[in-house]
Amino acid sequence: MSNAVNGQALAKALLNPSSVALVGISNDTKKTAARPLQFLRRAGFDGTVYNINPSREEVQGEKAYTSLSALPEIPDHAFILTNTEQAIAAVEECGKLGIPVATILAGGFSEKGAAGIEREKRLKEIAKASGVRLLGPSSIGLVNVHQNLTLTANAAFGEPGLPKGGIFCASHSGSLIGALTSRGRSRGIGFHTLVSVGSECDLSVGEICESTVDDPSVTGYLLFLETSRNADTLRRFALKAAAVGKPVVAYKLGRSEIAAELAVSHTGALAGEDSVTDALLRDCGIARVDTFEGLLEALPLLAMTPFRNAGDSAPRVGVVTTTGGGAAMAVDQLGVRGINVVSPSSDTQQKLQDAGIDGGSGRILDLTLAGTNYDVMKSALDIFCQAPEFDLVLATVGSSARNHPNLAVKPVIDSVNQGKPLACFIVPEAPEALTLLSEGGVPNFRTPESCGDVVAAALNRRTPNPELSVNVEARPSGQRVIDEAAAYELLAEVGLDHAAFTVIDVDQPLPELSFDYPVVAKVLSSAISHKTDVGGVVLPIRSKDELTAAISKIRHDVEKNLPGSKVEKILVQRLEKSVGEALIGIKWDRDVGPIVMVAAGGIYTELYKDRSLRLAPVNIEIAREMVGEVKAFEALAGYRGRPCGDLNAIAEAIVKLSQLAVSETHMIAEAEINPLMVMEEGKGALAVDALVTLST
Amino acid sequence: MSNAVNGQALAKALLNPSSVALVGISNDTKKTAARPLQFLRRAGFDGTVYNINPSREEVQGEKAYTSLSALPEIPDHAFILTNTEQAIAAVEECGKLGIPVATILAGGFSEKGAAGIEREKRLKEIAKASGVRLLGPSSIGLVNVHQNLTLTANAAFGEPGLPKGGIFCASHSGSLIGALTSRGRSRGIGFHTLVSVGSECDLSVGEICESTVDDPSVTGYLLFLETSRNADTLRRFALKAAAVGKPVVAYKLGRSEIAAELAVSHTGALAGEDSVTDALLRDCGIARVDTFEGLLEALPLLAMTPFRNAGDSAPRVGVVTTTGGGAAMAVDQLGVRGINVVSPSSDTQQKLQDAGIDGGSGRILDLTLAGTNYDVMKSALDIFCQAPEFDLVLATVGSSARNHPNLAVKPVIDSVNQGKPLACFIVPEAPEALTLLSEGGVPNFRTPESCGDVVAAALNRRTPNPELSVNVEARPSGQRVIDEAAAYELLAEVGLDHAAFTVIDVDQPLPELSFDYPVVAKVLSSAISHKTDVGGVVLPIRSKDELTAAISKIRHDVEKNLPGSKVEKILVQRLEKSVGEALIGIKWDRDVGPIVMVAAGGIYTELYKDRSLRLAPVNIEIAREMVGEVKAFEALAGYRGRPCGDLNAIAEAIVKLSQLAVSETHMIAEAEINPLMVMEEGKGALAVDALVTLST
Repeated sequence: MSNAVNGQALAKALLNPSSVALVGISNDTKKTAARPLQFLRRAGFDGTVYNINPSREEVQGEKAYTSLSALPEIPDHAFILTNTEQAIAAVEECGKLGIPVATILAGGFSEKGAAGIEREKRLKEIAKASGVRLLGPSSIGLVNVHQNLTLTANAAFGEPGLPKGGIFCASHSGSLIGALTSRGRSRGIGFHTLVSVGSECDLSVGEICESTVDDPSVTGYLLFLETSRNADTLRRFALKAAAVGKPVVAYKLGRSEIAAELAVSHTGALAGEDSVTDALLRDCGIARVDTFEGLLEALPLLAMTPFRNAGDSAPRVGVVTTTGGGAAMAVDQLGVRGINVVSPSSDTQQKLQDAGIDGGSGRILDLTLAGTNYDVMKSALDIFCQAPEFDLVLATVGSSARNHPNLAVKPVIDSVNQGKPLACFIVPEAPEALTLLSEGGVPNFRTPESCGDVVAAALNRRTPNPELSVNVEARPSGQRVIDEAAAYELLAEVGLDHAAFTVIDVDQPLPELSFDYPVVAKVLSSAISHKTDVGGVVLPIRSKDELTAAISKIRHDVEKNLPGSKVEKILVQRLEKSVGEALIGIKWDRDVGPIVMVAAGGIYTELYKDRSLRLAPVNIEIAREMVGEVKAFEALAGYRGRPCGDLNAIAEAIVKLSQLAVSETHMIAEAEINPLMVMEEGKGALAVDALVTLST
Repeated sequence: MSNAVNGQALAKALLNPSSVALVGISNDTKKTAARPLQFLRRAGFDGTVYNINPSREEVQGEKAYTSLSALPEIPDHAFILTNTEQAIAAVEECGKLGIPVATILAGGFSEKGAAGIEREKRLKEIAKASGVRLLGPSSIGLVNVHQNLTLTANAAFGEPGLPKGGIFCASHSGSLIGALTSRGRSRGIGFHTLVSVGSECDLSVGEICESTVDDPSVTGYLLFLETSRNADTLRRFALKAAAVGKPVVAYKLGRSEIAAELAVSHTGALAGEDSVTDALLRDCGIARVDTFEGLLEALPLLAMTPFRNAGDSAPRVGVVTTTGGGAAMAVDQLGVRGINVVSPSSDTQQKLQDAGIDGGSGRILDLTLAGTNYDVMKSALDIFCQAPEFDLVLATVGSSARNHPNLAVKPVIDSVNQGKPLACFIVPEAPEALTLLSEGGVPNFRTPESCGDVVAAALNRRTPNPELSVNVEARPSGQRVIDEAAAYELLAEVGLDHAAFTVIDVDQPLPELSFDYPVVAKVLSSAISHKTDVGGVVLPIRSKDELTAAISKIRHDVEKNLPGSKVEKILVQRLEKSVGEALIGIKWDRDVGPIVMVAAGGIYTELYKDRSLRLAPVNIEIAREMVGEVKAFEALAGYRGRPCGDLNAIAEAIVKLSQLAVSETHMIAEAEINPLMVMEEGKGALAVDALVTLST
């Protein structure tokens, strides 16, 4: 890319321009294209605003210029409010004049079929050739609250008095930046900047956020995502944000197949599989929330909760409450997300008793109505915050929060800086209590669902995978399948074991095998990927005679089932006894680059979508965590007296295969070991089938 | 029960008393026990209030009596605010005087170990003997908003100006009636009555609600449940409510195992399995929501959405929006709950086009910023509300809802009475818009999660199972296992087929079999339930010689593995070829009575908890629906070219077994057919093992 603007210069022109041009600004204040000037004036933006309108000398009582070329200076940023065709012309003009950044409101590009894709291509070429950077198309604009820069047509920003804060928001949806602002306002949550990124034909979520990562006034990032587009820049940004300790939270549409489809038609992008997005976000240290309310509530808790590592023990939450029923709702929401609420230790119980608090015998500390006062609550929280058995303390407060926040809300605020994450769920409607908590630096939740969602997201957030390379280059789209024997050879290079085999030329006399019967015979051909379906597999074979017969049968069946084919080679492999099976695979994903996957294989794990997925490569701790996420492997972990399988060998195989995923030597498009035979604990695992496709 | 008060008389004394006595009312207004008098006066209750305080002549400036016996009349209702022991004495006094209802604030009963259980037993005996009906213990009281009866110690009701409404709320949690009131208040949602039922030692949620089912001022029921205790009365109430067309919504704690455990320690009740609760609520026509916000938002939509029946086609939702991103959030939440959002038909598309609306080609109708005005929105909604392809129409409104509700909120309100459920999700913070919608009779949602939750709950709500009997009597707790042959006989009575078998006396000569080999031989004894574990099963057996050997082996192995046992009989059964297996079971559940369950059987379906459960008996439509809910059965529905299994035969077997569950003749405690061999489509299903336990 020959883009002229980068990093800090980009951040300046895009997010903090000294001068902006409003191209196609309307004089009719009922029109959308009239809004940016109204909003900039209402907000008191103190940079220069140039109005461009070819047919008027004045717009909304201000001077207007006929074109960008007529301006007395080169503005930092042009906001183009025209229709689709005029927008392309305006970008061309920006390029000629050397305007560094242009934002395009109009749609009509990649979301509008072949003609739109063609238009977008043209737009990108113009931008690339001239060096102008583009926000959009289909961007409703952006708002820098600290600079009073309401450079947007989103009606929500016509409302005065936007609360200032440290949150940088980037959104695929232009409408949502308005909704997030109004919802934040009601909770005393202020934004630093909000950017509607549109369809990201040039500037992506990742690049925009990255340009601000060193800005000390930005304290965290909130992303509203509809697709996994531009995963490379998102990944680069997220790793930098993690390095400087700024939390990132994302809400991503597409948990359901219908919504994934919707994101496609709505934005013109391809929607990746949701589990791939999950892997991307997780492996980059981005917390993903599933509730809209949780998206707004998450950053304060993320800021105080350290990243956890694969292999760490399960996180434990302690709960102090004034209402048993209210706390139970939050505990239930934690429980369904797999987060453990644990009882106070006997040591903690003793401290509570010493402080005159009845700890009860339950899993949570219920102070009840009787204990709803400052001193009891404060003592209990102090003891919980110091107790080593809790990774996070959750306080839930009942009715008193509404009219008497001093009783049980104030002590939460006074307990916040004790080196342990502390959060608060307020059961009744109590907006003032929530605002008090926010002002006091206590992460707070309005619903049990967002509470469970955010606490789980914070405790499940992982240190970015240290094995990931920052840059992921695209791979050629051509594909070539290699045969099973060649695949084993390739797997052996990274130390992946396979069952002993030999390749037999069907026109030669049958050699003696170097391993024992029983064996399996399989047709060997890179052209046949579903060997069983064409009669290309015979097993078990117990003797040389049976093998001879099997070879004849395979030749006959395959050549009958695939007319015109000729069986030349047969792979004969030792039949291994195992206690279970696994399926492991790698793939160069279109959106996110190399990924690695493990499942138990077989029809049921397919039906139940029971698998674990990560960006590749992974280390052994991550691989073990993946194995732990596959429910079917519980059957190999001593389930009901069954023999234990070598789960660690599965993890080791995942690590090795994941290294192959990023090999520059082999350029693998896709590879699958299915099955990997899992032996008894300590006895390893062996590939007994493998399918490898190379990028060419 | 010899209780004196029932039905309308109960409703009067409990919920609408002319006179109340506050037993143990405190003069110290800082104390919880002082609140009811304060609150009653503040609310302006116009019935008579008698203060009972043995040590004062005046309480809070009002006359006090030393005891209930000293009162000039017999009050309708005594609210007992004393400690545990005094409360028992007070109930005794109520009984002597003939006070019809007493509410007990104190805890210290069944939730406090053996001594507490003993105390509760005593309390129940006193009540039963004297006829006084009890609310509680551990009840924080009740509030009848229409009568200004704030007979409660819950601090939330000290706030004046409770909004009146038609919702009758019963809650296991006393704290929650306050939280629901404040959250409702902020949304313009008013209650009729709120009752903290405590631990339901006498009056249960079901009986209390049932007493109001004919009250025209009660329009719907909202239940906050912690346990499935007293399922019999809940069931009776729910069937009546369904019959008179009053919707019932429930939020039930215990989705996670931890919370289920918590409900136990918190209330002293046993928490039933969550899936059993699910079956109970579903089969009684109660909608269960999973979000706290949804609990408050659900009733208006339930009131306008008809019950659906098992066997109905999948419900379809049409979506009209002014914001693509906002609608996508709601669609995602519907999608993860299995609710289909469908595209407008070509007929509907044509009507939109005729009205000048660009219908686009997507699954939802996105009017965009450009279409955000009254006329476009109204036309679109009119067309959608008349379109036969939608069972429910969802409107989502973006930023304009906040400051310009006339644009896109007003048309929703004006579209509500067109004979089709219509609901609205508001994306920004816009409390006024939500209140306008509520006042206009439009079900409305503040979050995408509660929207998805409630719409799914409404569309999944089933007509109460017509096969259910209203009364479920407890069964004796003794149990007796019968042997496999006797079990088949019992199954045959209701028409359940089994594989051919014969019973062999091991001391007699081996008879000729009336069916072909191969067969299986199994030890036959009601004392051995895990036959395989003790070497009691041999298969396949292909000849008479093999059978003789198998019998010897079984005798030897079983007698070795179970020292002291003697094998007398062997069941020899034909081995059937099938395409799959199922497990069906019935059980007399401690909480809810007879239930029926189906799963695919085997280790994976156990690991994945893949099963379907209902109250018994069920009809064929419900049974088919159950089969459809078991994911593993997809493998028998033509999955990837596999042979289809006789899924209908599974459904028929479920129906038959479920009838056995309610048989008065056999009194079955528990029965399981595992496996039921499923033949190819049209060829039926056969039991090849059965375990039946009778109640005795």
